[in-house]
Amino acid sequence: MNDKAREPGRPAEEPDVPRDAAPALPELDAEELRDRWQRAVADVENLRKRCERQLEEARRSERDRVTAEWLPVVDHLELALQHAAADPRSIVAGVEAVCQQAFAVLAQLGYRRIAQVGDRFDPALHEAAQVREEPEAAPGSIVQVLRPGYDSDSGLLRPAVVSVAAKPER
Amino acid sequence: MNDKAREPGRPAEEPDVPRDAAPALPELDAEELRDRWQRAVADVENLRKRCERQLEEARRSERDRVTAEWLPVVDHLELALQHAAADPRSIVAGVEAVCQQAFAVLAQLGYRRIAQVGDRFDPALHEAAQVREEPEAAPGSIVQVLRPGYDSDSGLLRPAVVSVAAKPER
Repeated sequence: MNDKAREPGRPAEEPDVPRDAAPALPELDAEELRDRWQRAVADVENLRKRCERQLEEARRSERDRVTAEWLPVVDHLELALQHAAADPRSIVAGVEAVCQQAFAVLAQLGYRRIAQVGDRFDPALHEAAQVREEPEAAPGSIVQVLRPGYDSDSGLLRPAVVSVAAKPER
Repeated sequence: MNDKAREPGRPAEEPDVPRDAAPALPELDAEELRDRWQRAVADVENLRKRCERQLEEARRSERDRVTAEWLPVVDHLELALQHAAADPRSIVAGVEAVCQQAFAVLAQLGYRRIAQVGDRFDPALHEAAQVREEPEAAPGSIVQVLRPGYDSDSGLLRPAVVSVAAKPER
């Protein structure tokens, strides 16, 4: 049942009830025991099916919820383009606002932007696309973010792609 | 268990196993029956907990999956702004491309844009913000889409906000 390795940041799981745990049992005759057993077996099967349906529903509702968060970003992009047709100078400010709105959506959904120039390179979070000689930068620090990364409490969503300052030759 | 109304587009659900269904039972003595009953009761409890964990995991992975689809849109918005600093005329084409990319993400996730000028007004899909005298348009048809709506196979994500052609006075 617990064949997956525990992921970092997940709460400890309550241990399973041992199948031979002895609840306080009333005295029951064989017919009553058989009846209760049959009911419990049917409950297991029904619960399994209900769980499948709930999983599908949970995915659907999360997909709707997350997509609904992005719709205003798409609306504002369209509006920025419409305004640009009338006043071309308006578009840079409009798109800057949309970009800030997109960052706010990511934050609202629990995703943090990772990788800033000056951060120490961390292979768990960053992909080094380049190693550059940068005498001014601390060796092994990020000197340029080529593509930002994002993580959340439940793990890395996408690593950042960065350029890293070379370590001095000895 | 099935207290929710069936939503349109959902497959018919398999009916629950009746709790008094009689499986083919071997002859068992009271001790064995008691033991099997206890095991089945523990299975119910364990399944319930496992289902809770799986639901949380399904939501998390769907949130990650949908957000990962949007990240390239955010990346390209940022790049369009960077290019605009160097060449202000580039931004309109860049933002148009990002907008198309955002529509493609919505389609990829299974969401369809609803409401076109000329469509018949449908209160299940559209919100009428205005009713206008439009002698050229079919009465009750959409004459302007103020904000597009989106739906999917599992239902309406957001209604479209539209202006509707008035019906002629009699």
